[in-house]
Amino acid sequence: MKKPGPLSLNTATVKEQWSLQQCIEGCARHDITGISPWRDKLADYTTAKAAKHIRDVGLTVTGLCRGGMFPAADAAGRQAAIDDNKRAIDDAAALNAQCLVLVVGGMPAGSRDLAGARNQVQDGIAAVLEHAKAAKVPLAIEPLHPMYAADRACVNTLAQALDICDALGSGANDRHLGVAVDVYHVWWDPQLAAQIKRASKRVLAFHVCDWLVPTTDLLLDRGMMGDGVIDIPAIRAMVEGVGYDGFCEVEIMSTHNWWKKDADTVLRTCIERHATVV
Amino acid sequence: MKKPGPLSLNTATVKEQWSLQQCIEGCARHDITGISPWRDKLADYTTAKAAKHIRDVGLTVTGLCRGGMFPAADAAGRQAAIDDNKRAIDDAAALNAQCLVLVVGGMPAGSRDLAGARNQVQDGIAAVLEHAKAAKVPLAIEPLHPMYAADRACVNTLAQALDICDALGSGANDRHLGVAVDVYHVWWDPQLAAQIKRASKRVLAFHVCDWLVPTTDLLLDRGMMGDGVIDIPAIRAMVEGVGYDGFCEVEIMSTHNWWKKDADTVLRTCIERHATVV
Repeated sequence: MKKPGPLSLNTATVKEQWSLQQCIEGCARHDITGISPWRDKLADYTTAKAAKHIRDVGLTVTGLCRGGMFPAADAAGRQAAIDDNKRAIDDAAALNAQCLVLVVGGMPAGSRDLAGARNQVQDGIAAVLEHAKAAKVPLAIEPLHPMYAADRACVNTLAQALDICDALGSGANDRHLGVAVDVYHVWWDPQLAAQIKRASKRVLAFHVCDWLVPTTDLLLDRGMMGDGVIDIPAIRAMVEGVGYDGFCEVEIMSTHNWWKKDADTVLRTCIERHATVV
Repeated sequence: MKKPGPLSLNTATVKEQWSLQQCIEGCARHDITGISPWRDKLADYTTAKAAKHIRDVGLTVTGLCRGGMFPAADAAGRQAAIDDNKRAIDDAAALNAQCLVLVVGGMPAGSRDLAGARNQVQDGIAAVLEHAKAAKVPLAIEPLHPMYAADRACVNTLAQALDICDALGSGANDRHLGVAVDVYHVWWDPQLAAQIKRASKRVLAFHVCDWLVPTTDLLLDRGMMGDGVIDIPAIRAMVEGVGYDGFCEVEIMSTHNWWKKDADTVLRTCIERHATVV
């Protein structure tokens, strides 16, 4: 099997240890050539400073995390989300990011209308798509694991994400609206291989980590590649099979393990696992 | 909307408080007319005593929990699972259970071969199906939420479960092999309505509880109906739409809440919620 695409550090992996500035310096120190920042850290550093630092160091921004969170209880809330997504698109453009990752949002508090939330997501993406196209920022819908359907993302399968792409006019070779494939979210899906084929050139990002057994927290107990049960090389082969030749982005949220370790040790481990088990 | 089918108590709901004998007495005391025992409690009481007690009280056994757990690392392990499932079928027959619920099992320890585990599940069900038919015990495949794909059940959607039914010759009107629809496991599925239609007469059981926000444990933090975000009446309407007219089985595993309460209080709450939010 050929080597995986180059490593990118999603800053969530060392969220508790490092600022964005430290992440950029850390990537440079460890010869990691890609980075994917979160907007809270970006705001702390300022977009202008981060963009210059990233450019100076020569990193590729494989994605900006995150846009999305479209559903809201009322029209004002939905408009606020649309406005915020446009600002996220502008930030992504300033960073020359390869995509803006969309974690689409769950149901508004008190709602049990999952289908309604899903419709609001599609409407929200539709409302920002022209802005994204004009800014030349591809939007990557990230289907999240079904355990996040209520409160984080009501788009839970690649099939659903691609239905939205299709509905909004993004065909198989059209990369302005596509998907982020994170093995953690999709590994269980019986339709995985078929839907990655369907995605084709719309695979805009590839994220790795691992599913631990047992998993002790729904959100913050992700595993380092190789420590869990996901057949990561098999999924990598699927995305490469449709021509994906981009970075391999490591995103590990881990309160009790990786967030407690020395960040340089975390990065060294990512590099070693990227070379051996991805 | 018409009233839901009668209430059945899955004994897991008061697992920490009551033995099976106490569950049977509790159902009688509270005018609950259905029960669904777990095999560990059945073994404690003995199948013969439980069957007589249940008959004397006049309860309907809406299911026996559980068969399944088919995948294993070697042929001996798989055969042991098949043998155990045949014993479970015999127990279900002795109880005159409406079905044996199959929690199919995940990947064997150390394995990352999800597709292989799924094949082993289908092979396992095929190996016990004639035994079940002869015993007149319908087998209900219960798709479990994708968060259990690794270690509990690698059948995670109704579509998958129905593919197995189809492959093993159980058509839409054939009730010897079908599915258990548990709202907790399927509520997020974008294909839910379509797959329940496809299931048709193969809906052998309907289980209710609720999805809490936040959910603090992957296994043991299920909510009481009405306390979470699942639109239970909408899913009930779907199963009734294909002619399901059986019981509504409450199955709540809840270490930190319902398992700590007085069991009579739990049953009274189930009765009240069944009447008001299911």
